[in-house]
Amino acid sequence: MIYFDNSATTKPYKEVVDEVMDCLTNYFGNPSSAHRLGIEAEKKLSSARERVARIINAGPNEIFFTSGGTEANNTVIKGLLKKGDHVITTKIEHKSVIQAVKQLEEDGIEATYLSVDKDGIINLDELKNSIKDNTRLVTIMYVNNEIGSIQPVEDIIKIVREKSKKAKIHFDAVQALGKIKIDVKKLDADFLSLSAHKIHGPKGVGALYVKKDLKLKSLLTGGGQEKDLRSGTENVPGISGFGVACDFAYNNIEKNIEKVKEIKMHFIKRLSEIDDCIVNSPFDDKHINNVLSVSFLGVRGEVLLHGLEDYKIYVSTGSACSAKKAGHKNYVLPEIGLNEDAIEGTIRFSFSHMNEIQEVDKTIDALKNLLKFLRRFKR
Amino acid sequence: MIYFDNSATTKPYKEVVDEVMDCLTNYFGNPSSAHRLGIEAEKKLSSARERVARIINAGPNEIFFTSGGTEANNTVIKGLLKKGDHVITTKIEHKSVIQAVKQLEEDGIEATYLSVDKDGIINLDELKNSIKDNTRLVTIMYVNNEIGSIQPVEDIIKIVREKSKKAKIHFDAVQALGKIKIDVKKLDADFLSLSAHKIHGPKGVGALYVKKDLKLKSLLTGGGQEKDLRSGTENVPGISGFGVACDFAYNNIEKNIEKVKEIKMHFIKRLSEIDDCIVNSPFDDKHINNVLSVSFLGVRGEVLLHGLEDYKIYVSTGSACSAKKAGHKNYVLPEIGLNEDAIEGTIRFSFSHMNEIQEVDKTIDALKNLLKFLRRFKR
Ligand SMILES: Cc1ncc(COP(=O)(O)O)c(C=O)c1O
Ligand SMILES: Cc1ncc(COP(=O)(O)O)c(C=O)c1O
Repeated sequence: MIYFDNSATTKPYKEVVDEVMDCLTNYFGNPSSAHRLGIEAEKKLSSARERVARIINAGPNEIFFTSGGTEANNTVIKGLLKKGDHVITTKIEHKSVIQAVKQLEEDGIEATYLSVDKDGIINLDELKNSIKDNTRLVTIMYVNNEIGSIQPVEDIIKIVREKSKKAKIHFDAVQALGKIKIDVKKLDADFLSLSAHKIHGPKGVGALYVKKDLKLKSLLTGGGQEKDLRSGTENVPGISGFGVACDFAYNNIEKNIEKVKEIKMHFIKRLSEIDDCIVNSPFDDKHINNVLSVSFLGVRGEVLLHGLEDYKIYVSTGSACSAKKAGHKNYVLPEIGLNEDAIEGTIRFSFSHMNEIQEVDKTIDALKNLLKFLRRFKR
Repeated sequence: MIYFDNSATTKPYKEVVDEVMDCLTNYFGNPSSAHRLGIEAEKKLSSARERVARIINAGPNEIFFTSGGTEANNTVIKGLLKKGDHVITTKIEHKSVIQAVKQLEEDGIEATYLSVDKDGIINLDELKNSIKDNTRLVTIMYVNNEIGSIQPVEDIIKIVREKSKKAKIHFDAVQALGKIKIDVKKLDADFLSLSAHKIHGPKGVGALYVKKDLKLKSLLTGGGQEKDLRSGTENVPGISGFGVACDFAYNNIEKNIEKVKEIKMHFIKRLSEIDDCIVNSPFDDKHINNVLSVSFLGVRGEVLLHGLEDYKIYVSTGSACSAKKAGHKNYVLPEIGLNEDAIEGTIRFSFSHMNEIQEVDKTIDALKNLLKFLRRFKR
């Protein structure tokens, strides 16, 4: 099996699985219970909190566990914005940002969706000119999940801080975690969303970084867990597994970055052997190496995807969450100027350090075979 | 170890742990992915959906997975109520209901909190008289988590349906699941909250039953998972583990009810050997057998709890989620008319079919020893 769909989700580390199992079996207490079993479960949480904090250079008290990146994004957006507020985001955000903002627009919140250039990067002047007196939140993804574009987060912060005292800054860092060194202190971000299952951790766990002293209205209200920001009995096994995954990511980040870089470089080099394909996420500073979006002209991406599947090669046509929805239209690719033919033929290969160079060669071979065959039909 | 804190959380079945592990290892795909790994993960979800549906006699398409009971409760309350609406609940709800309703009161939603009698049961006339033209939701817990009182759910439905076409009915069935046969069809409930970790499933998973054709605004908005009601990459291992736990609960419900009944009966019988204790959740039709709340006069519950801990007996003083919060005041026990002395000395023993009669005897022995010692100090 060749798994090139790591932006959709990743295979948990063996050590993550072991940790989840250990918690389920030996640390099943409710972290809020006053007895030993509760205290031991609570210790699992604090240990994970430290591990997650460390990877973004936050304080453990600035980490709030959630059920994933989607909840982290919703918590910031819905917990901060009130009627009359203005929010700035981009046209290429993950749906958990775009749809949350759209929902709030119905409740009298004003929104600006920034456009992006052919590299998928926002225009800083447009950002600057969009900031208004009532701008309360700027929410921009650190790394895009379909084309891997990396936003200029330092510049964004500088511009927003210069123009507004009121606006808070949130980065959806779900696709950046473990792939870019993130330092929230240096960066001076206000909020940051993370998700475990994109870094070989378990599904259904994530975290929200909330800068010290900032307050949000809770989305899940109740027993007062997570300092009242996020109630609900804590998912101890998932959270603890997330902690383990963060440790691996933290300890191996340079090595992992290097490995994935080689894979992408090799893939792009070998793509030159294939006619009529456009690389939408070139090898450069503006794109993360984990994502390689390629438009194969003259074929349907979906057909190519299933063709590759026969070779046990797993890829996607775009973001997973809408891949199977009927009538789904990709909204990211048009923003970087792709025409319909190119969009239709787009495949996202997404890598992890667990992949190997040889897998690229096998994939190129498979692509050649498939394209020869498929393009004959289409044309 | 004697674990009598099963209302706080339960130890996952071995088979649940195995299922979680199998998903983490072999079914790690994103259920939304179009390829085989996605489809296999999606199959895990559908299978779990059927298993959860079966235990409450719902259709699988009426089951929406959440991160737990807290999220299920918040989803109904915040997803249904709009400014100007009226909601009826009780004074003894779990905090995930009470605090969610309180939060909405700040946004112009009107709320009535029904009182309860000494058994912890609402007054049906008070309910009837509380229903108004703008009553949009009646949210009442099926079984209370501290004293185990069972609300007259059939009567509640009858009264609400008679008096209002507009009001929807939600039961927080987190503490009822697996302990009472629930049939949403017969009952004609609109919404029902469930949580996996109270029935020997994993933490961080729950479900909301939403009667066919009813709509709620989503709390977690994004990729459109769970038919757009609950976005976020699905917690496949947790959900699938929940399915396994539901199967066990469904297949053994009679046996489990019988086992727990014997435990409670025996416990109450043997409590007669201890002076100055009040059973707040007697053995009768109004109280679930899984919960035995006892006030030991003349001692502090907290001290007794830690005393029992030395015997490796784990209990709680009340609901887990606020057990460790400073300045926490129990809000359920005063509602059934307990005085401060009794409240202070209250211990909740909560059972599962995994407990054994002999554990009761050991606990009684420990209680006798401890009380002899502790009461000497207090008095
Ligand atoms: C950029 C981005 N943000 C948010 C999310 C949502 O995270 P989760 O899947 O944990 O809900 C994803 C992935 O699905 C993502 O790629
Ligand atoms: C009656 C009741 N409702 C809701 C909940 C919350 O469920 P969860 O712990 O899954 O968030 C609990 C338990 O904590 C409960 O006892």
